[in-house]
Amino acid sequence: MAFTPLLEDLIDALRCLPGVGQKSAQRMAFQLLERGREGGWALSRTLAAALEKIGRCETCQNFSETPQCPLCQDASRETDIMCVVESPADVMAIEQARDYRGQYFVLMGHLSPIDGIGPEEIGVDKLLQRVTREGTRELIIATNPTVEGETTAHYIADRLADNGVLITRLAQGIPVGGELGYIDGSTLVHAFTGRKPLAG
Amino acid sequence: MAFTPLLEDLIDALRCLPGVGQKSAQRMAFQLLERGREGGWALSRTLAAALEKIGRCETCQNFSETPQCPLCQDASRETDIMCVVESPADVMAIEQARDYRGQYFVLMGHLSPIDGIGPEEIGVDKLLQRVTREGTRELIIATNPTVEGETTAHYIADRLADNGVLITRLAQGIPVGGELGYIDGSTLVHAFTGRKPLAG
Repeated sequence: MAFTPLLEDLIDALRCLPGVGQKSAQRMAFQLLERGREGGWALSRTLAAALEKIGRCETCQNFSETPQCPLCQDASRETDIMCVVESPADVMAIEQARDYRGQYFVLMGHLSPIDGIGPEEIGVDKLLQRVTREGTRELIIATNPTVEGETTAHYIADRLADNGVLITRLAQGIPVGGELGYIDGSTLVHAFTGRKPLAG
Repeated sequence: MAFTPLLEDLIDALRCLPGVGQKSAQRMAFQLLERGREGGWALSRTLAAALEKIGRCETCQNFSETPQCPLCQDASRETDIMCVVESPADVMAIEQARDYRGQYFVLMGHLSPIDGIGPEEIGVDKLLQRVTREGTRELIIATNPTVEGETTAHYIADRLADNGVLITRLAQGIPVGGELGYIDGSTLVHAFTGRKPLAG
């Protein structure tokens, strides 16, 4: 005994979403069929449209509906500084802070040999070519401060060692509004190592 | 600064799924566009097909692709006993236990006035008509042993009080394989109250 075949198919299809197992997929399918039919139709249509029209920006690899994304097309941005991030969400967070005005390169992940993700999958060669072509002066490697993010940062830095570009990493320390008592040891070590004179 | 418009639409559409907030929707959208395009297309197609073809069984209200579901069509099942459950998943669990061979009625929820779910939304009138029409001898109200499930059970029992049908609830007690030390007080009270002679 199983559910009706199409319902089984729908539950299977929902399991392709990250973090969704059998029980959550079942719950989602029931809700879509019971009280969320309108939302279900919208999801089916929007998903098809997004899969059809959203590709990668030729220049920075970010998601884009046009061959070049709006940020890469923006002529008012600085061209000699480039920030390397792991995900489109990172670009959005940095843009919302409204401080950085340079170029981006989105790796869409980090090096993870166990998952079959090597330098080619994250576009390291493309990044290197772009740095050389655009005469980038500074490359800020803003991958996440995790083991994988650090590995990826060091790999890219190694590959660019002879290029003459200045390679930087984001400062590590206590976040604004953080409470010392709740901050982990490694972050505190970074904060002490990177301490600055109060006047400066 | 936001994501590309179609990506924003996709994130919004994914939020109609239960338990999915902004960040999970974002993660799902990224994964679908990045490494799960095939799964994404399958989801879009299957969802549309399911929304188009899956309706409710005229007799028991369960999800069905035909006017009557296979269980209601099965002439070999007993017709004088009916089991009322909250969800299609409950029907599946009971069928997998392979003991009960009677009819079903699926409420697709429970009474919840705060969410606007009253007797009409769960089909109580339809259940009453069916009990009368089919001359049901016993109605097992197998709603969940939660506050809402118990309320729903009592409401249905009240409405059927003058009908002459035997109304039963599933036995409550310790589950098979359970350890006494880990079982909550109310379950233990039920287990003691419902104790049986060892020979019987």
